Amino acid sequence: MREEATAFVPGHITGFFSTHPDEDPTKAGSRGAGVTLTRGVEVTVEPEPTESASTVVLDGDEIEIEPVTTVLETLEATARVEVDSELPLGAGFGVSGATALGTALAANRVFDCKLSSNELVTISHGAEVRAGTGLGDVVAQAHGGVPIRLEPGSPQVNELDAIPARARVEYVSFGELSTPDVLSGDTDELSAAGTEALSRVVEEPTLLSFMYASRLFAREAGLLTEDVARAIGDVTDAGGQASMAMLGNTVFALGTGLSDAGYDPDVCTTHPAGAMLR
Amino acid sequence: MREEATAFVPGHITGFFSTHPDEDPTKAGSRGAGVTLTRGVEVTVEPEPTESASTVVLDGDEIEIEPVTTVLETLEATARVEVDSELPLGAGFGVSGATALGTALAANRVFDCKLSSNELVTISHGAEVRAGTGLGDVVAQAHGGVPIRLEPGSPQVNELDAIPARARVEYVSFGELSTPDVLSGDTDELSAAGTEALSRVVEEPTLLSFMYASRLFAREAGLLTEDVARAIGDVTDAGGQASMAMLGNTVFALGTGLSDAGYDPDVCTTHPAGAMLR
Repeated sequence: MREEATAFVPGHITGFFSTHPDEDPTKAGSRGAGVTLTRGVEVTVEPEPTESASTVVLDGDEIEIEPVTTVLETLEATARVEVDSELPLGAGFGVSGATALGTALAANRVFDCKLSSNELVTISHGAEVRAGTGLGDVVAQAHGGVPIRLEPGSPQVNELDAIPARARVEYVSFGELSTPDVLSGDTDELSAAGTEALSRVVEEPTLLSFMYASRLFAREAGLLTEDVARAIGDVTDAGGQASMAMLGNTVFALGTGLSDAGYDPDVCTTHPAGAMLR
Repeated sequence: MREEATAFVPGHITGFFSTHPDEDPTKAGSRGAGVTLTRGVEVTVEPEPTESASTVVLDGDEIEIEPVTTVLETLEATARVEVDSELPLGAGFGVSGATALGTALAANRVFDCKLSSNELVTISHGAEVRAGTGLGDVVAQAHGGVPIRLEPGSPQVNELDAIPARARVEYVSFGELSTPDVLSGDTDELSAAGTEALSRVVEEPTLLSFMYASRLFAREAGLLTEDVARAIGDVTDAGGQASMAMLGNTVFALGTGLSDAGYDPDVCTTHPAGAMLR
């Protein structure tokens, strides 16, 4: 057993999605597209004596992240998980999924579980879906780049493609929005808009069409918050394109969209790689 | 149309493989496993007037790389392709596949072809298979890390997994070995050994089992050159594990295997990301 291992998992902003429930959480998930970010989550796993309980510490505070607990239980690992996040939780950056996947990767190494990448992604994705905290972040974060999720679920069943591009990403977060609340409501309208957006991006897999499809989706799915709607309008007025991070009270733009509109955004770029051990 | 675009594609050392012919080159390919490398190929594509012919320049010299010509023809692009390779051609590093894939990524951007990542990988993989210069490098190089190729062919039909690990990679190249010559001969014995090696790595997806399976494959497939066989023996005597880069007169080891055995190897690490635009 190693003393510890650390994994980095990129953040992920979903631009649009449709939901695909299934009794088996490794088959459930979402179709859609998004951008992975150079900002993300660093997860360090250290073994704890088996008679004690696992603990998760986020930026110094002990917290409970349900998918992380599930991942550790699945791997039969008792551990101290230290999470260092460059992104806020609950604001549409896939932090819970990233933490689950980072825990799986690092624990696999520390506890010598001998699982493959796909197996670790499947465990993390299933844990995230079961907790209701996300539907597609984990598989996107395992992939990196600008992933298009053509078919839902874990790697055994899903199908991914990507937009072959890199971009500067700007974002401003206005606070939390509860993913479970939205996902447990009626998602028919949302999923119809998401399917429409996906066919646009499949037809023309460029960043421009991704932003266009995302903006249309945010409006049609009825998810826009007041803050985000105002910021999108401001960016449009300044000649750029912005949309809403699904699901968070967060606006994002590619290039200099938000700066040009007078905002003071956080800035990073798309992450060319998926989740990785340090 | 842009003035130019540059893509980086990691090198790829195949440890073992089995061949899977198909009339459709996008469905043909190989199963197997390997390591992608931080050393690779940088490809810059610049448009040329359509009435002239495309040219490929490798480290300053104009050359012909058949898969690159095929990729440009498929994209209906007339271009000057400048290839800057940190790895030798024909020595088992997948340089021809990397050049084809880098050309596809960069040309897609320069000529605004609006193709997806999978489409670009499919075109490059098909071009490489048709030329007989490789069977699995392109899909591995698009993936990054330590890919396991469970099912052959391009992304529409193949299935990939990976060993979730990073490693220092050492190698010594003793010269060229012709991939088309080996692949056009009788590959039954080779493929049987490759299938056996793959089932070992699927059962235990670790770097140790990958090296073990690769070494056994190299011996059983009857491909070992004298130089490589001697180097593998020297590394084993020094307590390490080395194997042969398929297909090249090249020996590789993880960690410090070759240094420990008194060689003066080139050193890099596994590349966490797949091919990417600069």
